[in-house]
Amino acid sequence: MSRVVCVTPNPAVDVTYRVGSLVPGASHRVSDPVERPGGKGVNVARVLHALGVPAVVVAPLGGPAGAGLAEALRAGGHAVRPVPVAAETRRTVTVVDDAGAATAFNEPGRALSADEWPAVVAAVTEELADAVALVVSGSLPAGAPDDLLPRLVAAARAAGVPAVADTSGPALLSVAGSGPALVKPNADELAEALPGDDGVSGAAGRLLALGARRVVVSLGADGLLGLGGSGGDGAVWRVAGVPGVSGNPTGAGDATVAALVRGLVAGTPWPEVLADAAALGAAAVLAAAAGEVDLAAYERFLPTLHAERVE
Amino acid sequence: MSRVVCVTPNPAVDVTYRVGSLVPGASHRVSDPVERPGGKGVNVARVLHALGVPAVVVAPLGGPAGAGLAEALRAGGHAVRPVPVAAETRRTVTVVDDAGAATAFNEPGRALSADEWPAVVAAVTEELADAVALVVSGSLPAGAPDDLLPRLVAAARAAGVPAVADTSGPALLSVAGSGPALVKPNADELAEALPGDDGVSGAAGRLLALGARRVVVSLGADGLLGLGGSGGDGAVWRVAGVPGVSGNPTGAGDATVAALVRGLVAGTPWPEVLADAAALGAAAVLAAAAGEVDLAAYERFLPTLHAERVE
Repeated sequence: MSRVVCVTPNPAVDVTYRVGSLVPGASHRVSDPVERPGGKGVNVARVLHALGVPAVVVAPLGGPAGAGLAEALRAGGHAVRPVPVAAETRRTVTVVDDAGAATAFNEPGRALSADEWPAVVAAVTEELADAVALVVSGSLPAGAPDDLLPRLVAAARAAGVPAVADTSGPALLSVAGSGPALVKPNADELAEALPGDDGVSGAAGRLLALGARRVVVSLGADGLLGLGGSGGDGAVWRVAGVPGVSGNPTGAGDATVAALVRGLVAGTPWPEVLADAAALGAAAVLAAAAGEVDLAAYERFLPTLHAERVE
Repeated sequence: MSRVVCVTPNPAVDVTYRVGSLVPGASHRVSDPVERPGGKGVNVARVLHALGVPAVVVAPLGGPAGAGLAEALRAGGHAVRPVPVAAETRRTVTVVDDAGAATAFNEPGRALSADEWPAVVAAVTEELADAVALVVSGSLPAGAPDDLLPRLVAAARAAGVPAVADTSGPALLSVAGSGPALVKPNADELAEALPGDDGVSGAAGRLLALGARRVVVSLGADGLLGLGGSGGDGAVWRVAGVPGVSGNPTGAGDATVAALVRGLVAGTPWPEVLADAAALGAAAVLAAAAGEVDLAAYERFLPTLHAERVE
């Protein structure tokens, strides 16, 4: 079964607590914790699964938290290829109050040992033998090799499948330089990695110049910008946001990535891929948790959105 | 080796995160988490260990968190008698900012199954065969049997050793009614369990009338009050606080309990026991974490404190 390989270099067990209100300096009795598998690549796989697109999560997983994460994914019907590592998988703790405000405490990913990253690359390479695409999403834990993402992109190229990367910081630049099919920063990540006064489309153009074949910049409520598909090298496409959508933006970028990879694999025309990605991202904002989408809203949003060429 | 049996009905893995400042509604990158065994009975055992008094922790422990808690206690040189239970042991998360303010999120203890509480009682009873005292500290998880603490006190009586209880709410009243050697509420817990206008010593006297043979009420920075030891039934003793002590009050009550049980076991005169307990409680405020005491401060404080008969 050909599937999308979703690599999550820095997975987490996402823990949610509910409180009446969060008072700094006070002691709170919280609700029973809700735990779910987290990490951006995990979220992409969940959205693909909801869309009926087979996916497998590849992630370094360690300790009881890592074992629990793999077990929870399998219990949810997801394929997972754990790469066993010594360090315990991290947690994130999100405290949600009665007004819906979310306060997050994100543990850093623990460093892997020198021989564990090659095991991750080997597992991804094996999975790519029977894959339709590679997605690499999220941050890298401290100590990850600088060339990790370029090596994964090279493995996808060797397997003849497109590679999509959603990351930030120096890793965004190094992965763009390795010639992936697509990179998807958000506007803040793009401005941080490539500061300058050439605007969003200018900075995105620099990612193209580095080597990415397509760039999609998610703009939150303002939709997204797409470069590098059909229309010639200089074409910049824009899809507006869906008006009046508010909710939980966490995971919207992951839903956008899921739509983009689905479109690339299917060979869908570029403007349609972009409109689809914007609709699915907006539908994710309406869902309760990252990695979920409101499919009914997606069906409503899709016919209202169109990519327009702006440059 | 005769030791103090420290029962912790509702243990926890205490997790501490450090942040620059806690901003409700924001996302925070936190330090590497520091995990340590928690729960009031665990803290009492740690203080006893620091004092050179052998102790064993008896606690229902479940899942990877429970296994990790037992392992961490053993690694610290503590004896532990885990009672295996199905439900995972809870966590507490404390977020400490750069100014030292601590914001705590305490998960509720998960309910034990019907046959697990009898296993706790059986384990305590076995440990009491070679014990010098019983301490039961902390809250009860939801679903704990109403007569749990009275049954533990009865087991101590059958073994011929004194029972000391530090709990709150209805459990404080039921354990006092079962005739323990000593109960130690703090002033807030006492006022909550026994509201009225007869003041701290009046309410403490009602715990004596219920059946407790001694009552010590910890008053935070104001020291403590002791009833029911030497001096006749109506005697109320008071030890003032140590002036100018500030720090981390969590665990001060547990250090007080450790000193009280040590004094009861040694047959130390009651006024000396009370002064010792106040000194050790104040020394715990100066220590970084619950279950620790500043032994040098304790040695300084001890000669400055004296119990005075106030009623």
